[in-house]
Order: sequence, then structure tokens, then C-alpha cells
Amino acid sequence: MASMATFLAKTPISTPPFPSPLKYDISPRPLLPFPLLAAPRQAARTLRSRRIACGLIEPDGGRLVDLVAPAGPARDVRRREAAALPKLRLSRVDLEWVHVLSEGWASPLRGFMREAEFLQALHFNSLRLPDGSFVNMSVPIVLAIDDTQKKAIGNQRKVALVDANNKLVAILSDIEIYKHNKEERIARTWGTTAEGLPYVKEAIENAGNWLIGGDLEVTEPIKYNDGLDGYRLSPAQLREEFSRRNADAVFAFQLRNPVHNGHALLMTDTRRRLLEMGYKNPILLLHPLGGFTKADDVPLGWRMKQHEKVLEDGVLDPETTVIAIFPSPMHYAGPTEVQWHAKSRINAGANFYIVGRDPAGMKYPKQDKDLYDPDHGKKVLSMAPGLEKLNILPFKVAAYDIKKQKMDFFDPSRPQDFLFISGTKMRSLAQNRLDPPDGFMCPGGWNVLVEYYETLLLEAVSN
Amino acid sequence: MASMATFLAKTPISTPPFPSPLKYDISPRPLLPFPLLAAPRQAARTLRSRRIACGLIEPDGGRLVDLVAPAGPARDVRRREAAALPKLRLSRVDLEWVHVLSEGWASPLRGFMREAEFLQALHFNSLRLPDGSFVNMSVPIVLAIDDTQKKAIGNQRKVALVDANNKLVAILSDIEIYKHNKEERIARTWGTTAEGLPYVKEAIENAGNWLIGGDLEVTEPIKYNDGLDGYRLSPAQLREEFSRRNADAVFAFQLRNPVHNGHALLMTDTRRRLLEMGYKNPILLLHPLGGFTKADDVPLGWRMKQHEKVLEDGVLDPETTVIAIFPSPMHYAGPTEVQWHAKSRINAGANFYIVGRDPAGMKYPKQDKDLYDPDHGKKVLSMAPGLEKLNILPFKVAAYDIKKQKMDFFDPSRPQDFLFISGTKMRSLAQNRLDPPDGFMCPGGWNVLVEYYETLLLEAVSN
Repeated sequence: MASMATFLAKTPISTPPFPSPLKYDISPRPLLPFPLLAAPRQAARTLRSRRIACGLIEPDGGRLVDLVAPAGPARDVRRREAAALPKLRLSRVDLEWVHVLSEGWASPLRGFMREAEFLQALHFNSLRLPDGSFVNMSVPIVLAIDDTQKKAIGNQRKVALVDANNKLVAILSDIEIYKHNKEERIARTWGTTAEGLPYVKEAIENAGNWLIGGDLEVTEPIKYNDGLDGYRLSPAQLREEFSRRNADAVFAFQLRNPVHNGHALLMTDTRRRLLEMGYKNPILLLHPLGGFTKADDVPLGWRMKQHEKVLEDGVLDPETTVIAIFPSPMHYAGPTEVQWHAKSRINAGANFYIVGRDPAGMKYPKQDKDLYDPDHGKKVLSMAPGLEKLNILPFKVAAYDIKKQKMDFFDPSRPQDFLFISGTKMRSLAQNRLDPPDGFMCPGGWNVLVEYYETLLLEAVSN
Repeated sequence: MASMATFLAKTPISTPPFPSPLKYDISPRPLLPFPLLAAPRQAARTLRSRRIACGLIEPDGGRLVDLVAPAGPARDVRRREAAALPKLRLSRVDLEWVHVLSEGWASPLRGFMREAEFLQALHFNSLRLPDGSFVNMSVPIVLAIDDTQKKAIGNQRKVALVDANNKLVAILSDIEIYKHNKEERIARTWGTTAEGLPYVKEAIENAGNWLIGGDLEVTEPIKYNDGLDGYRLSPAQLREEFSRRNADAVFAFQLRNPVHNGHALLMTDTRRRLLEMGYKNPILLLHPLGGFTKADDVPLGWRMKQHEKVLEDGVLDPETTVIAIFPSPMHYAGPTEVQWHAKSRINAGANFYIVGRDPAGMKYPKQDKDLYDPDHGKKVLSMAPGLEKLNILPFKVAAYDIKKQKMDFFDPSRPQDFLFISGTKMRSLAQNRLDPPDGFMCPGGWNVLVEYYETLLLEAVSN
């Protein structure tokens, strides 16, 4: 999701901003909410009851991919082998993708995409498996190289991937090098070629004109040593944790912004409704994105501090909440990217996915309008190939209820009582040390934000 | 296919321009030629033998859509009904799409796309049916309206579609109006937003900012009265013709250029190989595109004259060839559009589809490079969802063999003996009344081209 905060403000009050309760109620909808002909309600119902009886959802492709070399002598063998291979130095974003791939978030993908996978991702947002079934795969996970690197590799079948300090990270085997048509990649992924897309500037604009795909094996688990590695649970670790807690439903909440009480309301309400549906122990996966984000988003470290406060203050129940970091970088590719956000959580064991207004969206670069139609994200998500087994939960619009002095679901019968506080507004309040309305966010969480902007200010002054 | 002519010239001789015979042999390949893991060869084999035993391939969705009101009083009822409805005047391209839809080329689509179908076409190049299966649908088939038209429609649920002379063409019912984000549509369909894309200039740039979808019913079959309507066989008529001829395989050849002997060689060779595979009576569907084409393509009327000569001159066998006009307009959207060209032919009964280099491709606007990677078309086609039941036949490169003085398959062991004659080159020869090498095209066909360019010249002089 783009963040509840963003979506709150972008919603104009004049045209009905909210889905009708019936249509967007969180009870599991038919799996084909936008069918060509008619919705197979019966099938959805059968599936639902079956799921209640089951354990965790199966990862895509049936088996969780794990690309970390086994500990012990095997790793030394890899290191010796790598010494003789051509070396490619990974950028920050490349390394985040190595991390993502190595832990199986992109299962069944076993490395950077070869051309057949790249083309399927671009054209179909999905990959076909040998049995004819589809798994979702909407963003290209690719590694770019330039002419010089391509030449250095020559006819060799393997390359070593190293970090900024030339330390070995992984080996890429059975490689395939193919053209990196940046314009086409950007147009098909973002639906625009506008200048100023953050991921494009960071990771594509200056990247090489070739892509290199292959089978990945990392020599040891990826760590960042930033004090947050403890939060970086792999899909396997998350599944273990959900099993340990005897979860019979896991609902994932993707975010890249501070949690306010509107988010919290939504998450607790989701749990309540899952209980009503017959689940005994629904567990929330509160899953902030940890990779590359654009400059004006709140950095991961500060967001994690804020999330900790939200749990400490009892806004969310630690008993039924698992908080962990999702290591992917952010594309800001709206309807295309939200599929990736959902698909990767299947691999971590989530069978419910919460989606809001304008997921993975942002403003159109340098223009005062949304890059994507705010409703397309949830529509595309609900129709996406390979996501049929995931229950999509479009959320109701929450806003600050002036009368009740708290965040609540928007009531269309009295629009004048609701205040929509955008991410921009929230940040501007915190920056200016102005208090948000009572009940917008727990005080502990708010103080973290204020502290963050003070630090920014001090840095600016000292530069 | 883009045209054999185009692909001949674009192929550089320095890098091997041809697929290896093994890889691109026309024998039916496994249905998953670019599998993520391994190809299910066994399944492909089973399917192949089953097909040989079967009749015509099933249309997408199981039943051929027919949106023409039954002849007789029903049509008068529609006309009376239409008189009271808001009217939308169709452009030339709109009318071509009405034609396409009405005859079921886009089965199971029953009218201009509503938003759910539009989004699926843009993001997934396919539509999900209620039973969970997919049909291919790669280009949006949409009708644009502007603010004034939207206002005039108001809350009405039906509109009448009329032609340039205000004559009723069709009724669109149960309508849905949604935003026409042109930039996103163009970027996702073409993989570029470059200025100068012919279809964009013709049908999108000046179109309205809304799209209107709904169920279509045409009041009578679409006719153009240009002397070519006899060639405009509907999918139902083509199926009837194939059955009448007892076809046990139908191989479709899409083209938008004059037929030269390289094309002919390929088509006769395909038939020979289908016979070798065990088919008793493979029929060729020679299927020139009849809708909108860019200004420098040879117009339909002249192409049809040329194709007639090719049959008269015995270059293709009329006994085993059905020539008909495919009413769709041309997008020039390469790998995205070639899927539409293939999918629509399934609906006409073809179970084999011939694909060449750079299908539906063109030069990048105002630059001397291809818009698409010339190999992407066949790769994307072979992986496209919903086309599994179609046998894709990537074709071998043919060129003019100087030694043999005829068009022949390119022989990589003696590249110096082959001449690649591009569409541009061919046109320039005909324009300048220069003869092409002997055996490049039958003389009757060539004379039609020369005559066309003379007419053009006369027109230019008289203006």
C-alpha cells in the first residue's frame, strides 16, 4: 500500500471517495471480483472453508527457494571457486535484490531473470511453470552490466558478485546475457516514461545496456549490520514463527510510512473480522519495506523506532503481531508493483493481503496529480494471474473523526466530520513541531517522527 | 508478421541472423519453449497426436461470438430503439473494431472493453474466464469519448453508434464509462511513448479522455462497398470453408505487404512439412490485414490485386489456399500485437500460426533502428497466456539466392550468395520502374506494384 496517510489526503470528499460497504467489505470476496462473465461464488466459498482447515499457504512453485550455500566447508569451496571468476560489483539496490532472491521471496525464481523470465514479467506479469500453471511476477528482477563488463565475462559461464568492499556475496551460474532496453522496461513496468521516477533514477538510468541472468547462490546470509538485522526475517523464519504461534490465518500489511491510528484501526478490525469468519488465531504480519525508498520517505531506522513505539504503546497487540522487515527495494510502480508486494508475502506464509488506495503509488513526477488511478491497484491485484490463492482485502477508508476525536472508518452520511491527513501534511506537522489532532497517532510514535525531523534540521544546519 | 520483406533487410549478415535449424525448425515445438524449469515434451506430443485426429480448433471461450442482430424484424426493433438513444459517431478505426468485435475475432469479448477487461489487457495481455482459464487479449479494444459526449450520455445505459453519415451501425448496452489514461495505455501497449507511432496519431492522440465499454450488437453485417467485401470472410465463414475443404490443419499467414516468392516458399514449405507430420489436408489461410495501416504501406486494394496475381500465376495453389481479409486495424505494437494477430486466427479456425522476424514491428519513429528486438515477437508469442492450444511456427529466413536465381532459405555456410531485399528496397525498385532480380516475385504481382506507384506519381503530379 502507498500508505494510509497518503491515501487519506488524496481522497477528494466531493466525489464519493469510498467503496460501497457491500462491494469493498473485507469479507473474502469471490476470487474473481472482475469476471468477464459471472463470479464463481460457490468456488470461493468452498475454498474459504478449505483454507480455514489448512496450515500455511503453499509458497509459489510449491517449495520455498533457498539460495544460501550450506554453512561449513561448502562456503569455502565457493570462495575458492569465486577467486578465479570475473567479478561484478553490486550496487546497493542490486544487493537488495540478491537478498530478496536468496531467501526465496521471489520463489520459484532461482536467480536474476534470464530473458524468457524478463519478457514474461514485462508482458504478462507472471511466469508459466512447466505444469502450465502461473505464478505472479510483475517486476523484473534483473542485474545490469555494461559493455566493458560484458566483454570481460566473454564466454565464461559463471561470475562472482561482490559488494562495495569487493567482498564476495554470491556466484551467478549458467549465465545468459541479453539486451537491456531501458525505455521498454520502464514503459511496460511503470506505464509512463516520465522523467524523475525514483527507482529509474537510482537503478536504471545509469545502469548498463545488458542484463545478466543466471542461477544465484549466496555464500552466506545477507546482513547489513545496521542494528536492524534481527528484524530481517526470511520467509522461512516467518513461516516458522507463524507455525510456532499456531496461526491459522496470516494477514500481511505492507507499509513504507509511519503507522498511525488509522492503520492500527484497520489492522485490528481485520483481525476481528477474520475471527468472525471462523479463524481461531489470525496473525498480523506488519511488514515495512526495508530496501531503497525515495528521498522524502522516512528512513527505515526511524520507521522501525516508530513501529516499536506503536507496539510498546499497545496500539497493536504484540501477541498477535509479527513485525519484520521486507528487504525489497521500492519501485513506486503502482498496480504493477502491488502484485509483487502481495506475491512475495505468499512466500512468507500470508494468505490474506490488505490493500488500500493507490498502493505503491506516488505523485506524477513534477506534477500535482497521482501517477496512477488510485483504484487501479486493488483492481489489478484482484485480477492478477498467480494470485488466486491469496485473499485480497481492500480496505475501507479511515480518517480523523473530529466529533469522536479519533481515527475511524469514514462515514459517508457525515463527510463534514472527517479530516483527511496526508503523508505530506503529517510530515509537515512533525517538521514544524505542531501536534496532530488527538488520537491521530500514539504519542510515543509521534515523538519519534518529531525527533527525526529535528535530526534532519540539525544535519542541514551543520552542513 | 511484419512482412518478410522488412525482415529480410533488417537482418544483418555479420551476426548470425538466423535461428539454428534445430531450434527453429517448424516441427511443432513443445508448448513451453521457454520454460522456467523444464519443457513438458510428453504433454506436447500427446496434444499433437490428439489434434491430428480432431476437427477445427475451438474458438476462445468455447463458442464463437456473433454480435449481428438476426435479420428480419429484430433489426427494425433495434433501429426504432436507437432513434431515442444518445448517438456516438464512429471514426474509421472505431468502425473497424466494431467489425472485428461483431464477427467474433476477439471471442469471447462481446463488445468494447469495460475497465476490468482493459486493465487485464494492459497488464496481463489476457483475460481470465469464470472457470479460471485464460484467453489471450493483448491489445485494448476500446472506444473513446470526450467530455461533451460523456455529459450527453449522462445516466443512460445504452448508446447508438453511427457511421460518418449518421447511419446506425450498432447499439452498445449496459455501458461503463471510465478514464482513458492515454499515456499509460500507450506505454503499456507499445513499450514506448515515442512520438510518431502511427496508430497513436490516428486513433489515440486526439481521442477523448474517457472510454466507454459495453455489450455490442450491430444492426447488420459491416460492409465497406469497396469491391472487396467478398474477401471479408467472418471467422464463422472461414470455419465453414475449412470444413467444406475437409481441412485437418489450418495454418495462418498474417501479412500487410505484397507477397514475394520468399513468402510463397515459406508457405508451400510449411504445407509440405505438415503433410510429413501426418496431416492429410493442411489448408493455408493467406490473411492480409484490411484495417488501418500506416501511410507508406501499400493500400489494401492494391495488395489484394497483387495477391490475386500470385494465385493466378500459380505461385500458391488455390486448391489449398483460402485468401481472405482480416478486418483489424494495425497497431504496429510488435510483441504485444503479434499475440492479437495469432489469437484472432484461433477464432477463425487456425491451429498453426506462422511467425517471422519482428512481427508487427516497424522502425523506431524518426530513428534508424528497429522499434522492437526482432526476436522478441516470436519469443513472447510462444510464452503468451491463452495461446497454448495454438502451434507457433517460427519461420526460417528466406533471401534471394544469387547463384540459384530464386528465393530460398538462407544458407549460413555461404552468406555471400544471398541478397536481402527489404520492403523499402522493394518499394523503391517498383517506384523507379527497376526490375527486381529474376525470381523475386511473379511478374504479374510485380506489375501491380509498378502500376500502384505510377498511380501515386500521377496523383502527385495532378495535385
